[in-house]
Amino acid sequence: MDKNEEKQREEEREQVVSPWEVSSSGKIDYDKLIDKFGCQRLDQSLVDRVQRLTGRPPHVFLRRGVFFAHRDLNDILDAYEKGEKFYLYTGRGPSSEALHLGHLVPFMFTKYLQDAFKVPLVIQLTDDEKCMWKNLSVEESQRLARENAKDIIACGFDVTKTFIFSDFDYVGGAFYKNMVKVAKCVTYNKVVGIFGFTGEDHIGKVSFPPVQAVPSFPSSFPHLFSGKDHLRCLIPCAIDQVGSPFFLV
Amino acid sequence: MDKNEEKQREEEREQVVSPWEVSSSGKIDYDKLIDKFGCQRLDQSLVDRVQRLTGRPPHVFLRRGVFFAHRDLNDILDAYEKGEKFYLYTGRGPSSEALHLGHLVPFMFTKYLQDAFKVPLVIQLTDDEKCMWKNLSVEESQRLARENAKDIIACGFDVTKTFIFSDFDYVGGAFYKNMVKVAKCVTYNKVVGIFGFTGEDHIGKVSFPPVQAVPSFPSSFPHLFSGKDHLRCLIPCAIDQVGSPFFLV
Repeated sequence: MDKNEEKQREEEREQVVSPWEVSSSGKIDYDKLIDKFGCQRLDQSLVDRVQRLTGRPPHVFLRRGVFFAHRDLNDILDAYEKGEKFYLYTGRGPSSEALHLGHLVPFMFTKYLQDAFKVPLVIQLTDDEKCMWKNLSVEESQRLARENAKDIIACGFDVTKTFIFSDFDYVGGAFYKNMVKVAKCVTYNKVVGIFGFTGEDHIGKVSFPPVQAVPSFPSSFPHLFSGKDHLRCLIPCAIDQVGSPFFLV
Repeated sequence: MDKNEEKQREEEREQVVSPWEVSSSGKIDYDKLIDKFGCQRLDQSLVDRVQRLTGRPPHVFLRRGVFFAHRDLNDILDAYEKGEKFYLYTGRGPSSEALHLGHLVPFMFTKYLQDAFKVPLVIQLTDDEKCMWKNLSVEESQRLARENAKDIIACGFDVTKTFIFSDFDYVGGAFYKNMVKVAKCVTYNKVVGIFGFTGEDHIGKVSFPPVQAVPSFPSSFPHLFSGKDHLRCLIPCAIDQVGSPFFLV
Protein backbone atom coordinates (compact mmCIF):
# COMPACT_ATOMS: atom_id res chain seq x y z
CA MET A 1 0.00 0.00 0.00
CA ASP A 2 1.57 3.34 -0.97
CA LYS A 3 1.20 6.53 1.02
CA ASN A 4 -1.77 7.84 -0.98
CA GLU A 5 -3.72 4.64 -0.61
CA GLU A 6 -2.95 4.62 3.07
CA LYS A 7 -4.17 8.19 3.45
CA GLN A 8 -7.38 7.37 1.58
CA ARG A 9 -8.11 4.31 3.74
CA GLU A 10 -7.44 6.39 6.82
CA GLU A 11 -9.94 9.01 5.65
CA GLU A 12 -12.52 6.32 4.90
CA ARG A 13 -12.19 4.98 8.40
CA GLU A 14 -12.79 8.46 9.75
CA GLN A 15 -16.19 8.76 8.03
CA VAL A 16 -18.99 6.27 8.60
CA VAL A 17 -22.44 6.77 7.09
CA SER A 18 -24.84 3.85 7.38
CA PRO A 19 -28.51 3.50 8.33
CA TRP A 20 -27.36 2.78 11.86
CA GLU A 21 -24.45 5.19 12.32
CA VAL A 22 -23.17 8.54 11.11
CA SER A 23 -19.76 9.57 12.41
CA SER A 24 -16.71 11.46 11.22
CA SER A 25 -13.58 12.92 12.74
CA GLY A 26 -14.25 16.15 10.82
CA LYS A 27 -16.96 17.27 8.40
CA ILE A 28 -18.81 14.68 6.32
CA ASP A 29 -17.33 14.62 2.83
CA TYR A 30 -20.42 14.45 0.65
CA ASP A 31 -18.51 14.07 -2.60
CA LYS A 32 -16.91 10.96 -1.21
CA LEU A 33 -20.32 9.60 -0.17
CA ILE A 34 -21.68 10.18 -3.65
CA ASP A 35 -18.81 8.24 -5.17
CA LYS A 36 -18.98 5.46 -2.63
CA PHE A 37 -22.71 4.92 -3.03
CA GLY A 38 -22.73 5.14 -6.83
CA CYS A 39 -24.86 8.29 -7.01
CA GLN A 40 -24.52 11.44 -9.09
CA ARG A 41 -24.38 15.04 -7.81
CA LEU A 42 -27.67 16.92 -8.13
CA ASP A 43 -26.18 19.92 -9.95
CA GLN A 44 -27.67 23.28 -10.90
CA SER A 45 -28.55 22.21 -14.44
CA LEU A 46 -30.70 19.39 -13.05
CA VAL A 47 -32.40 21.74 -10.58
CA ASP A 48 -33.11 24.09 -13.49
CA ARG A 49 -34.53 21.19 -15.48
CA VAL A 50 -36.94 20.30 -12.65
CA GLN A 51 -38.09 23.92 -12.60
CA ARG A 52 -38.59 23.99 -16.38
CA LEU A 53 -40.53 20.70 -16.46
CA THR A 54 -42.81 21.44 -13.51
CA GLY A 55 -43.26 25.18 -14.05
CA ARG A 56 -42.57 25.71 -10.34
CA PRO A 57 -39.69 27.16 -8.41
CA PRO A 58 -37.52 24.33 -7.11
CA HIS A 59 -38.06 23.38 -3.48
CA VAL A 60 -35.82 25.14 -0.99
CA PHE A 61 -34.26 21.71 -0.17
CA LEU A 62 -33.11 21.56 -3.80
CA ARG A 63 -31.95 25.20 -3.99
CA ARG A 64 -29.98 24.89 -0.76
CA GLY A 65 -28.55 21.48 -1.56
CA VAL A 66 -30.25 19.58 1.29
CA PHE A 67 -31.01 16.98 -1.37
CA PHE A 68 -27.65 16.88 -3.08
CA ALA A 69 -27.45 13.54 -4.89
CA HIS A 70 -29.56 11.32 -7.12
CA ARG A 71 -29.43 8.16 -9.15
CA ASP A 72 -30.82 8.20 -12.70
CA LEU A 73 -33.09 11.22 -12.06
CA ASN A 74 -32.36 12.33 -15.62
CA ASP A 75 -33.91 9.12 -16.99
CA ILE A 76 -37.12 9.73 -15.06
CA LEU A 77 -37.24 13.35 -16.25
CA ASP A 78 -36.64 12.20 -19.85
CA ALA A 79 -39.62 9.88 -19.58
CA TYR A 80 -41.72 12.55 -17.86
CA GLU A 81 -40.92 15.00 -20.63
CA LYS A 82 -42.28 12.48 -23.15
CA GLY A 83 -45.54 12.31 -21.22
CA GLU A 84 -44.84 9.21 -19.13
CA LYS A 85 -45.74 9.45 -15.47
CA PHE A 86 -43.82 7.87 -12.61
CA TYR A 87 -44.62 7.20 -8.97
CA LEU A 88 -42.93 8.03 -5.69
CA TYR A 89 -42.01 5.57 -2.96
CA THR A 90 -40.84 6.48 0.49
CA GLY A 91 -41.35 5.06 3.95
CA ARG A 92 -40.80 5.02 7.65
CA GLY A 93 -39.72 2.41 10.18
CA PRO A 94 -42.08 3.05 13.10
CA SER A 95 -39.69 2.88 16.04
CA SER A 96 -41.07 5.75 18.15
CA GLU A 97 -44.35 7.46 19.01
CA ALA A 98 -43.84 10.61 16.96
CA LEU A 99 -41.72 11.85 14.08
CA HIS A 100 -39.16 14.60 14.75
CA LEU A 101 -38.13 17.26 12.26
CA GLY A 102 -35.35 15.10 10.80
CA HIS A 103 -37.82 12.33 10.04
CA LEU A 104 -40.10 14.83 8.34
CA VAL A 105 -37.51 16.18 5.89
CA PRO A 106 -37.94 13.41 3.28
CA PHE A 107 -41.73 13.58 3.64
CA MET A 108 -41.76 17.37 3.14
CA PHE A 109 -39.65 16.96 0.03
CA THR A 110 -41.80 14.07 -1.20
CA LYS A 111 -44.89 16.28 -0.86
CA TYR A 112 -43.21 18.91 -3.04
CA LEU A 113 -42.42 16.25 -5.67
CA GLN A 114 -45.98 14.92 -5.62
CA ASP A 115 -47.43 18.42 -6.02
CA ALA A 116 -44.95 19.49 -8.70
CA PHE A 117 -45.18 16.35 -10.86
CA LYS A 118 -48.76 15.38 -9.90
CA VAL A 119 -47.83 11.75 -9.38
CA PRO A 120 -48.98 8.88 -7.13
CA LEU A 121 -47.10 8.08 -3.94
CA VAL A 122 -46.79 4.92 -1.85
CA ILE A 123 -45.59 5.17 1.76
CA GLN A 124 -44.40 1.95 3.42
CA LEU A 125 -44.54 1.65 7.22
CA THR A 126 -42.12 -1.17 8.03
CA ASP A 127 -43.72 -2.31 11.28
CA ASP A 128 -42.50 -5.84 10.54
CA GLU A 129 -38.89 -4.55 10.42
CA LYS A 130 -39.15 -2.74 13.74
CA CYS A 131 -40.84 -5.77 15.32
CA MET A 132 -37.76 -7.79 14.34
CA TRP A 133 -34.92 -5.25 14.85
CA LYS A 134 -36.19 -3.46 17.95
CA ASN A 135 -37.80 -6.59 19.35
CA LEU A 136 -41.19 -4.89 19.68
CA SER A 137 -44.34 -6.99 19.81
CA VAL A 138 -46.43 -7.19 16.65
CA GLU A 139 -49.15 -5.17 18.37
CA GLU A 140 -46.79 -2.43 19.58
CA SER A 141 -45.18 -2.13 16.14
CA GLN A 142 -48.60 -1.77 14.56
CA ARG A 143 -49.63 0.83 17.13
CA LEU A 144 -46.50 2.89 16.41
CA ALA A 145 -47.19 2.56 12.67
CA ARG A 146 -50.67 4.02 13.17
CA GLU A 147 -49.31 6.87 15.33
CA ASN A 148 -46.60 7.65 12.77
CA ALA A 149 -49.14 7.53 9.95
CA LYS A 150 -50.96 10.46 11.59
CA ASP A 151 -47.80 12.59 11.54
CA ILE A 152 -47.17 11.64 7.92
CA ILE A 153 -50.75 12.41 6.87
CA ALA A 154 -50.34 15.82 8.53
CA CYS A 155 -47.75 16.70 5.87
CA GLY A 156 -50.70 17.21 3.54
CA PHE A 157 -50.24 14.68 0.74
CA ASP A 158 -52.83 14.50 -2.03
CA VAL A 159 -55.34 12.03 -0.56
CA THR A 160 -56.47 10.93 -4.02
CA LYS A 161 -52.91 9.98 -5.02
CA THR A 162 -51.37 8.57 -1.82
CA PHE A 163 -51.35 5.02 -0.43
CA ILE A 164 -49.96 4.52 3.08
CA PHE A 165 -49.62 0.93 4.20
CA SER A 166 -48.28 -1.13 7.07
CA ASP A 167 -46.34 -4.26 6.07
CA PHE A 168 -48.26 -6.33 8.61
CA ASP A 169 -51.48 -5.30 6.88
CA TYR A 170 -50.35 -5.30 3.28
CA VAL A 171 -47.79 -8.11 2.73
CA GLY A 172 -49.47 -10.84 0.69
CA GLY A 173 -50.79 -11.40 -2.82
CA ALA A 174 -48.89 -9.59 -5.58
CA PHE A 175 -46.59 -7.98 -3.00
CA TYR A 176 -45.57 -11.38 -1.57
CA LYS A 177 -45.09 -12.82 -5.06
CA ASN A 178 -42.61 -10.05 -5.80
CA MET A 179 -40.88 -10.67 -2.46
CA VAL A 180 -40.31 -14.30 -3.47
CA LYS A 181 -39.01 -13.26 -6.91
CA VAL A 182 -36.52 -10.85 -5.32
CA ALA A 183 -35.47 -13.36 -2.64
CA LYS A 184 -34.57 -15.90 -5.36
CA CYS A 185 -32.08 -13.43 -6.85
CA VAL A 186 -30.17 -12.54 -3.68
CA THR A 187 -27.66 -14.84 -2.01
CA TYR A 188 -26.91 -14.89 1.70
CA ASN A 189 -23.33 -13.79 0.94
CA LYS A 190 -24.70 -10.74 -0.85
CA VAL A 191 -26.77 -9.51 2.10
CA VAL A 192 -23.89 -10.26 4.47
CA GLY A 193 -21.61 -8.14 2.27
CA ILE A 194 -24.05 -5.25 2.41
CA PHE A 195 -25.43 -5.46 5.95
CA GLY A 196 -22.68 -7.29 7.81
CA PHE A 197 -25.00 -9.88 9.37
CA THR A 198 -23.47 -12.72 11.36
CA GLY A 199 -24.66 -16.29 11.80
CA GLU A 200 -26.15 -15.32 15.14
CA ASP A 201 -28.51 -12.80 13.51
CA HIS A 202 -32.02 -14.13 13.12
CA ILE A 203 -33.41 -15.14 9.75
CA GLY A 204 -35.97 -12.34 9.91
CA LYS A 205 -33.18 -9.84 9.29
CA VAL A 206 -31.74 -11.96 6.49
CA SER A 207 -35.11 -12.21 4.77
CA PHE A 208 -36.14 -8.55 5.12
CA PRO A 209 -34.42 -6.92 2.08
CA PRO A 210 -37.11 -8.11 -0.38
CA VAL A 211 -39.84 -6.47 1.74
CA GLN A 212 -38.18 -3.08 1.37
CA ALA A 213 -37.24 -3.65 -2.27
CA VAL A 214 -40.58 -4.59 -3.81
CA PRO A 215 -42.50 -1.31 -3.35
CA SER A 216 -40.23 -0.07 -6.15
CA PHE A 217 -42.07 -2.45 -8.53
CA PRO A 218 -45.48 -1.14 -9.64
CA SER A 219 -46.80 -4.72 -9.89
CA SER A 220 -46.67 -4.87 -6.08
CA PHE A 221 -49.70 -2.57 -6.08
CA PRO A 222 -52.23 -4.06 -8.51
CA HIS A 223 -55.04 -1.89 -7.11
CA LEU A 224 -53.02 1.22 -8.02
CA PHE A 225 -50.98 0.35 -11.08
CA SER A 226 -52.69 -2.56 -12.81
CA GLY A 227 -51.41 -2.90 -16.38
CA LYS A 228 -48.62 -0.38 -15.75
CA ASP A 229 -45.83 -2.83 -14.99
CA HIS A 230 -43.18 -0.58 -16.54
CA LEU A 231 -44.04 2.55 -14.59
CA ARG A 232 -40.89 4.12 -13.19
CA CYS A 233 -40.42 4.73 -9.50
CA LEU A 234 -38.57 7.62 -7.82
CA ILE A 235 -37.48 7.07 -4.22
CA PRO A 236 -36.79 10.18 -2.15
CA CYS A 237 -34.64 9.14 0.80
CA ALA A 238 -31.57 9.97 2.83
CA ILE A 239 -28.09 9.12 1.53
CA ASP A 240 -27.57 6.46 4.23
CA GLN A 241 -30.52 4.54 2.79
CA VAL A 242 -29.12 4.68 -0.73
CA GLY A 243 -25.71 3.66 0.32
CA SER A 244 -25.77 0.54 2.30
CA PRO A 245 -29.13 -1.08 2.58
CA PHE A 246 -31.92 -2.31 0.50
CA PHE A 247 -31.53 -0.55 -2.79
CA LEU A 248 -28.03 -1.87 -3.40
CA VAL A 249 -29.43 -5.38 -3.23
CA MET B 1 -12.78 -43.09 19.15
CA ASP B 2 -13.24 -46.69 20.29
CA LYS B 3 -14.34 -49.52 18.04
CA ASN B 4 -18.03 -49.27 18.98
CA GLU B 5 -18.20 -45.57 18.27
CA GLU B 6 -16.41 -46.10 15.00
CA LYS B 7 -18.89 -48.80 14.02
CA GLN B 8 -21.83 -46.57 14.92
CA ARG B 9 -20.48 -43.65 12.87
CA GLU B 10 -19.90 -45.96 9.96
CA GLU B 11 -23.50 -47.17 10.14
CA GLU B 12 -24.78 -43.61 10.32
CA ARG B 13 -22.88 -42.72 7.17
CA GLU B 14 -24.46 -45.71 5.44
CA GLN B 15 -28.02 -44.46 6.07
CA VAL B 16 -29.21 -41.07 4.86
CA VAL B 17 -32.84 -39.96 5.28
CA SER B 18 -33.57 -36.32 4.50
CA PRO B 19 -36.29 -34.50 2.55
CA TRP B 20 -33.98 -34.59 -0.45
CA GLU B 21 -32.36 -38.03 -0.20
CA VAL B 22 -33.04 -41.52 1.11
CA SER B 23 -30.17 -43.97 0.77
CA SER B 24 -28.70 -46.88 2.68
CA SER B 25 -26.18 -49.61 2.06
CA GLY B 26 -28.68 -52.13 3.48
CA LYS B 27 -32.18 -51.83 4.91
CA ILE B 28 -33.28 -48.59 6.53
CA ASP B 29 -32.99 -48.94 10.32
CA TYR B 30 -36.22 -47.33 11.52
CA ASP B 31 -35.37 -47.58 15.20
CA LYS B 32 -32.26 -45.53 14.53
CA LEU B 33 -34.31 -42.93 12.64
CA ILE B 34 -36.74 -42.65 15.54
CA ASP B 35 -33.89 -42.02 17.95
CA LYS B 36 -32.12 -39.59 15.64
CA PHE B 37 -35.22 -37.50 14.99
CA GLY B 38 -36.44 -37.44 18.58
CA CYS B 39 -39.65 -39.38 17.95
CA GLN B 40 -41.30 -42.20 19.83
CA ARG B 41 -42.33 -45.59 18.43
CA LEU B 42 -46.03 -45.87 17.63
CA ASP B 43 -46.56 -49.09 19.61
CA GLN B 44 -49.53 -51.43 19.85
CA SER B 45 -50.88 -49.87 23.05
CA LEU B 46 -51.11 -46.50 21.27
CA VAL B 47 -52.83 -48.07 18.27
CA ASP B 48 -55.30 -49.72 20.69
CA ARG B 49 -55.87 -46.35 22.36
CA VAL B 50 -56.73 -44.71 19.02
CA GLN B 51 -59.24 -47.50 18.38
CA ARG B 52 -60.78 -47.10 21.85
CA LEU B 53 -61.09 -43.31 21.56
CA THR B 54 -62.52 -43.21 18.05
CA GLY B 55 -64.63 -46.35 18.17
CA ARG B 56 -63.18 -47.38 14.81
CA PRO B 57 -60.76 -50.06 13.72
CA PRO B 58 -57.33 -48.48 13.29
CA HIS B 59 -56.33 -47.64 9.75
CA VAL B 60 -54.42 -50.34 7.90
CA PHE B 61 -51.40 -47.97 7.80
CA LEU B 62 -51.42 -48.08 11.61
CA ARG B 63 -52.02 -51.83 11.88
CA ARG B 64 -49.26 -52.62 9.40
CA GLY B 65 -46.80 -50.08 10.81
CA VAL B 66 -46.63 -47.84 7.71
CA PHE B 67 -46.97 -44.99 10.21
CA PHE B 68 -44.53 -46.21 12.82
CA ALA B 69 -43.49 -43.15 14.82
CA HIS B 70 -45.00 -40.10 16.48
CA ARG B 71 -44.14 -37.16 18.67
CA ASP B 72 -46.38 -36.39 21.65
CA LEU B 73 -49.41 -38.18 20.18
CA ASN B 74 -50.30 -39.26 23.72
CA ASP B 75 -50.66 -35.61 24.76
CA ILE B 76 -53.12 -34.94 21.95
CA LEU B 77 -55.10 -38.07 22.82
CA ASP B 78 -55.15 -37.06 26.51
CA ALA B 79 -56.64 -33.71 25.52
CA TYR B 80 -59.07 -35.34 23.09
CA GLU B 81 -60.22 -37.72 25.81
CA LYS B 82 -61.07 -34.70 27.98
CA GLY B 83 -63.23 -33.31 25.20
CA GLU B 84 -60.71 -30.93 23.61
CA LYS B 85 -60.52 -31.03 19.83
CA PHE B 86 -57.37 -30.58 17.78
CA TYR B 87 -56.72 -29.89 14.12
CA LEU B 88 -54.66 -31.57 11.44
CA TYR B 89 -52.04 -29.92 9.26
CA THR B 90 -50.42 -31.49 6.26
CA GLY B 91 -49.24 -30.23 2.91
CA ARG B 92 -47.67 -30.66 -0.47
CA GLY B 93 -44.90 -28.94 -2.41
CA PRO B 94 -46.35 -28.71 -5.93
CA SER B 95 -43.37 -29.77 -8.02
CA SER B 96 -45.16 -31.91 -10.63
CA GLU B 97 -48.45 -32.13 -12.50
CA ALA B 98 -49.92 -35.05 -10.61
CA LEU B 99 -49.49 -36.88 -7.32
CA HIS B 100 -48.26 -40.48 -7.39
CA LEU B 101 -49.22 -43.14 -4.89
CA GLY B 102 -46.34 -42.29 -2.56
CA HIS B 103 -47.49 -38.69 -2.37
CA LEU B 104 -51.01 -39.85 -1.57
CA VAL B 105 -50.07 -42.01 1.43
CA PRO B 106 -50.03 -39.15 3.98
CA PHE B 107 -53.25 -37.72 2.52
CA MET B 108 -55.02 -41.10 2.75
CA PHE B 109 -53.94 -41.42 6.35
CA THR B 110 -54.94 -37.81 7.08
CA LYS B 111 -58.42 -38.52 5.71
CA TYR B 112 -58.72 -41.45 8.11
CA LEU B 113 -57.68 -39.21 11.03
CA GLN B 114 -60.16 -36.51 10.02
CA ASP B 115 -63.00 -39.04 9.75
CA ALA B 116 -62.10 -40.85 12.95
CA PHE B 117 -61.60 -37.79 15.17
CA LYS B 118 -63.99 -35.47 13.26
CA VAL B 119 -61.51 -32.61 13.27
CA PRO B 120 -60.63 -29.68 10.99
CA LEU B 121 -57.75 -29.96 8.55
CA VAL B 122 -55.53 -27.38 6.85
CA ILE B 123 -53.55 -28.36 3.75
CA GLN B 124 -50.70 -26.09 2.71
CA LEU B 125 -49.58 -26.01 -0.93
CA THR B 126 -46.07 -24.54 -0.82
CA ASP B 127 -46.02 -23.05 -4.31
CA ASP B 128 -43.67 -20.32 -3.02
CA GLU B 129 -41.18 -23.00 -1.93
CA LYS B 130 -41.20 -24.76 -5.31
CA CYS B 131 -40.90 -21.41 -7.09
CA MET B 132 -37.68 -20.84 -5.14
CA TRP B 133 -36.18 -24.35 -4.97
CA LYS B 134 -37.12 -25.64 -8.41
CA ASN B 135 -36.77 -22.22 -10.02
CA LEU B 136 -40.31 -22.36 -11.42
CA SER B 137 -42.09 -19.13 -12.33
CA VAL B 138 -44.71 -17.85 -9.91
CA GLU B 139 -47.42 -18.63 -12.47
CA GLU B 140 -46.19 -22.20 -13.13
CA SER B 141 -45.93 -22.92 -9.39
CA GLN B 142 -49.48 -21.70 -8.89
CA ARG B 143 -50.71 -23.78 -11.82
CA LEU B 144 -49.11 -26.92 -10.35
CA ALA B 145 -50.65 -26.07 -6.97
CA ARG B 146 -54.12 -25.96 -8.54
CA GLU B 147 -53.52 -29.24 -10.40
CA ASN B 148 -52.26 -30.92 -7.22
CA ALA B 149 -55.22 -29.55 -5.26
CA LYS B 150 -57.54 -31.53 -7.55
CA ASP B 151 -55.73 -34.79 -6.72
CA ILE B 152 -55.86 -33.95 -3.02
CA ILE B 153 -59.55 -33.06 -3.11
CA ALA B 154 -60.16 -36.43 -4.81
CA CYS B 155 -59.08 -38.14 -1.56
CA GLY B 156 -62.52 -37.20 -0.24
CA PHE B 157 -61.85 -34.91 2.73
CA ASP B 158 -64.82 -33.47 4.63
CA VAL B 159 -65.49 -30.28 2.65
CA THR B 160 -67.01 -28.58 5.70
CA LYS B 161 -63.85 -29.15 7.75
CA THR B 162 -61.00 -28.75 5.25
CA PHE B 163 -59.08 -25.65 4.16
CA ILE B 164 -56.65 -26.03 1.25
CA PHE B 165 -54.51 -22.99 0.51
CA SER B 166 -51.64 -21.89 -1.70
CA ASP B 167 -48.95 -19.83 0.02
CA PHE B 168 -48.97 -17.31 -2.82
CA ASP B 169 -52.67 -16.76 -2.18
CA TYR B 170 -52.76 -16.97 1.58
CA VAL B 171 -49.53 -15.51 3.04
CA GLY B 172 -50.41 -12.20 4.68
CA GLY B 173 -52.32 -10.91 7.68
CA ALA B 174 -52.26 -13.15 10.75
CA PHE B 175 -50.22 -15.75 8.85
CA TYR B 176 -47.50 -13.22 8.00
CA LYS B 177 -47.48 -11.88 11.58
CA ASN B 178 -46.74 -15.39 12.82
CA MET B 179 -44.03 -15.79 10.18
CA VAL B 180 -42.29 -12.67 11.55
CA LYS B 181 -42.63 -13.94 15.13
CA VAL B 182 -41.04 -17.27 14.20
CA ALA B 183 -38.29 -15.64 12.10
CA LYS B 184 -37.23 -13.54 15.13
CA CYS B 185 -36.58 -16.74 17.11
CA VAL B 186 -34.40 -18.56 14.57
CA THR B 187 -30.78 -17.67 13.86
CA TYR B 188 -29.04 -18.18 10.54
CA ASN B 189 -26.67 -20.63 12.22
CA LYS B 190 -29.66 -22.70 13.35
CA VAL B 191 -31.09 -23.11 9.84
CA VAL B 192 -27.62 -23.84 8.46
CA GLY B 193 -27.21 -26.56 11.08
CA ILE B 194 -30.49 -28.15 10.05
CA PHE B 195 -30.55 -27.59 6.28
CA GLY B 196 -26.88 -27.24 5.42
CA PHE B 197 -27.32 -24.02 3.43
CA THR B 198 -24.21 -22.25 2.17
CA GLY B 199 -23.58 -18.55 1.63
CA GLU B 200 -24.31 -19.02 -2.05
CA ASP B 201 -27.87 -20.17 -1.34
CA HIS B 202 -30.42 -17.44 -1.90
CA ILE B 203 -32.16 -15.73 0.99
CA GLY B 204 -35.51 -17.18 -0.11
CA LYS B 205 -34.34 -20.58 1.15
CA VAL B 206 -33.03 -19.09 4.37
CA SER B 207 -36.32 -17.32 5.06
CA PHE B 208 -38.66 -20.21 4.18
CA PRO B 209 -38.75 -22.21 7.46
CA PRO B 210 -41.27 -19.83 9.11
CA VAL B 211 -43.69 -20.29 6.20
CA GLN B 212 -43.81 -24.03 6.81
CA ALA B 213 -43.83 -23.68 10.59
CA VAL B 214 -46.73 -21.29 11.14
CA PRO B 215 -49.64 -23.48 9.95
CA SER B 216 -49.03 -25.38 13.19
CA PHE B 217 -50.29 -22.29 15.08
CA PRO B 218 -54.10 -21.95 15.07
CA SER B 219 -53.79 -18.14 15.16
CA SER B 220 -52.49 -18.31 11.57
CA PHE B 221 -56.08 -19.12 10.54
CA PRO B 222 -58.32 -16.53 12.20
CA HIS B 223 -61.25 -17.39 9.90
CA LEU B 224 -61.09 -20.99 11.15
CA PHE B 225 -59.85 -20.86 14.74
CA SER B 226 -60.61 -17.39 16.07
CA GLY B 227 -60.40 -17.38 19.87
CA LYS B 228 -58.89 -20.88 19.92
CA ASP B 229 -55.24 -19.91 20.17
CA HIS B 230 -54.38 -22.96 22.27
CA LEU B 231 -55.88 -25.55 19.96
CA ARG B 232 -53.43 -28.40 19.45
CA CYS B 233 -52.21 -29.41 16.02
CA LEU B 234 -51.36 -32.91 14.77
CA ILE B 235 -49.14 -33.11 11.69
CA PRO B 236 -49.26 -36.36 9.70
CA CYS B 237 -46.12 -36.52 7.58
CA ALA B 238 -43.24 -38.72 6.49
CA ILE B 239 -40.28 -39.33 8.80
CA ASP B 240 -37.92 -37.32 6.56
CA GLN B 241 -40.04 -34.24 7.20
CA VAL B 242 -39.95 -34.73 10.96
CA GLY B 243 -36.29 -35.32 11.03
CA SER B 244 -34.45 -32.60 9.33
CA PRO B 245 -36.54 -29.74 8.20
CA PHE B 246 -39.05 -27.30 9.42
CA PHE B 247 -40.40 -28.85 12.57
CA LEU B 248 -37.02 -29.11 14.26
CA VAL B 249 -36.67 -25.34 13.90
